Amino acid sequence: MRRVAVVGTGHSQFCFNSPKTSVELLSEVAIDAMAEANVKPKDIQAINVGNVLGDFEEGQGMVQSFFANDIGCFGVPASRFEGACASGSMAIRDAVMWVASGYYDIMLAGGVEKCTAMPTSLATRTFSMFGDSRYEYPAGFTFPAVFALLAHLYSKRYSIPLDKLKDQMAAVSVQSHEYAMKNPNAQIQKQITKEDVLNSMMISSPIQLHDACPFSDGAAAIIIASEEVAKKLVKKPVYFAGMGQSSSGKLSSQSKYLPGLHARELACRQSFSMSGLTPRDIDLVELHDCFSIASIIAAEDLGFFGRGAAGEAWERGDTRLGGKIPVNISGGLKAKGHPIGATGVSQVIEVTRQLRGDMAEQGRQVECAKYGLVDTLGGDGVLISLILSAA
Amino acid sequence: MRRVAVVGTGHSQFCFNSPKTSVELLSEVAIDAMAEANVKPKDIQAINVGNVLGDFEEGQGMVQSFFANDIGCFGVPASRFEGACASGSMAIRDAVMWVASGYYDIMLAGGVEKCTAMPTSLATRTFSMFGDSRYEYPAGFTFPAVFALLAHLYSKRYSIPLDKLKDQMAAVSVQSHEYAMKNPNAQIQKQITKEDVLNSMMISSPIQLHDACPFSDGAAAIIIASEEVAKKLVKKPVYFAGMGQSSSGKLSSQSKYLPGLHARELACRQSFSMSGLTPRDIDLVELHDCFSIASIIAAEDLGFFGRGAAGEAWERGDTRLGGKIPVNISGGLKAKGHPIGATGVSQVIEVTRQLRGDMAEQGRQVECAKYGLVDTLGGDGVLISLILSAA
Repeated sequence: MRRVAVVGTGHSQFCFNSPKTSVELLSEVAIDAMAEANVKPKDIQAINVGNVLGDFEEGQGMVQSFFANDIGCFGVPASRFEGACASGSMAIRDAVMWVASGYYDIMLAGGVEKCTAMPTSLATRTFSMFGDSRYEYPAGFTFPAVFALLAHLYSKRYSIPLDKLKDQMAAVSVQSHEYAMKNPNAQIQKQITKEDVLNSMMISSPIQLHDACPFSDGAAAIIIASEEVAKKLVKKPVYFAGMGQSSSGKLSSQSKYLPGLHARELACRQSFSMSGLTPRDIDLVELHDCFSIASIIAAEDLGFFGRGAAGEAWERGDTRLGGKIPVNISGGLKAKGHPIGATGVSQVIEVTRQLRGDMAEQGRQVECAKYGLVDTLGGDGVLISLILSAA
Repeated sequence: MRRVAVVGTGHSQFCFNSPKTSVELLSEVAIDAMAEANVKPKDIQAINVGNVLGDFEEGQGMVQSFFANDIGCFGVPASRFEGACASGSMAIRDAVMWVASGYYDIMLAGGVEKCTAMPTSLATRTFSMFGDSRYEYPAGFTFPAVFALLAHLYSKRYSIPLDKLKDQMAAVSVQSHEYAMKNPNAQIQKQITKEDVLNSMMISSPIQLHDACPFSDGAAAIIIASEEVAKKLVKKPVYFAGMGQSSSGKLSSQSKYLPGLHARELACRQSFSMSGLTPRDIDLVELHDCFSIASIIAAEDLGFFGRGAAGEAWERGDTRLGGKIPVNISGGLKAKGHPIGATGVSQVIEVTRQLRGDMAEQGRQVECAKYGLVDTLGGDGVLISLILSAA
């Protein structure tokens, strides 16, 4: 299998109520990505797109075909992937395989979502279709409720009093907002304090408003190429060193692993094994922080902190720039935003730009970063892990 | 790249108003496919599923993850593909690549849909989300209208008076109903005459009720394996000899090719080129007959008949068992049914079973068939072409 690299990136402003269609949002970032990669539409041999709600929210299914044609990629294979909030990462992992196998040399992988046209209460209900709809949703398991349950389980399992855990969760959100202020594409550009988090509206106890990511519109796209082609196109290709994917069923079927997610452990075991790396080798992480408790659980599942220890790590600043393992220096889903089909692609772009050393100008560069990890969770059912390498 | 074979098939009864969920429908056929392939759930390394309306119609997104878990395939990667009515074929083509590349040895590819819970008028509107929703749907382009337009164009381009074309279109539907009566999984088990077609309700002139496929619920799944593994598992593996995929944009962007579909020509050119075969080598075809005029256009796009000549071929019986090129001996979408995400998988299963010689017991075996072609159209935007080989 050949090595595959990211050679171009395009990332929209994440926002509330974009006036653009999904096809338009995706087209704009694709053109940016092609420009950065020094390729033209005719060079793109196939397209993978992550998109979840195109038909449901915008009345437009199969956005990938219309998008491909609109950007001048005529007649190429264009496939849509859906794995809830991990759809974008799923599209990328699959594209990497098509190039690694030698079938294609250059592909575009993107993701797009418009989540904000509907009222927030309807959005929460809509998202819950990506949990188990038949038994668990009717029992009250929207995603805020799922993560509230995990927070209670976490508190009990690791003997961390809920008040203390809430302080730790607040530290996660405060850090994300701080870094998002340095990211011009972030949806929320506003500093918050621990008190802001603890005084915010209760959603599903102990999850408060500022423990949750926003609903977002946005798009992101990358161009990938085989190593040989990549070296001809750009000065700093960023390589895929490892990848893994795993899925699970209903939340109730995962009970013996909770609050940890077994699918995450399986997925990152694959990506670490493929890359020959360990958590100690990783210089930065973009992980799936749909809720602040999700960040804490993910950082432990991924092996960066011991069980029950990640919250304190956030409080100590171990997850900051210069800390033990910088986490979500983009602002994360919490403050950068979470246009679900685009999120995995956005994470890969953040890590790519960090590994290229592009983030100094935004004042949030992870110095001398060689390896970065992307972790994307879809619903409570799918996990994707991607490791990128600067060389 | 390694050769990849179908080693197991599972196909549900296609029907109206199934009481089962998509996860249940898919689970049943997957268990049949695994039994036929002599594999167990633990042998399945990854799963691809074609599904279009899970969230929209049933309120269940990400069916693949819940399905994987329910059949005992714990923790494997499970991805959902959406390319409108070609979603199932898209899932298969992608799975073939993962096995051909050597990454996996055994995968499951399936498709499922429930299209019949909503009223027919709503279903037509729902399906139109897979055409261009922003400009063409508001101008009246539901799919019956698209194919009505193509019928008018076809009539004019090839100087076939509309009355004569309608007779030809009727011949397509009559043949499909006849063969569906020999297919126990077919949704419509009823003989019809040319007069039945011409007297049926007008939908979008010249498309009448019996020119259109029904709305359907159903599922289909296959197990695929590398050649080496396949030969150990079963006596008659059926190999993928060629595959192609192409997409196009809005209908208006295709105007210089219509009534032919350029994406189909590109997709089947790829599959013929990869297999080293020509249309003359193909012994049977399952093609995408969502409307009778679609069959006529497809048979010409694929190179089996000259432009303007396919309708007469149906009338002459060239498309029947024993004819020049047997087409849709399963009953086709028209009478076997069209549960959209499952359709491509169903077509691959029909060709596989024909190439294994299994259809004699149903009285519809294509004798000495060596090569079969599958053609699946998604909306007016994606085309997938797969060529299967008996050896």
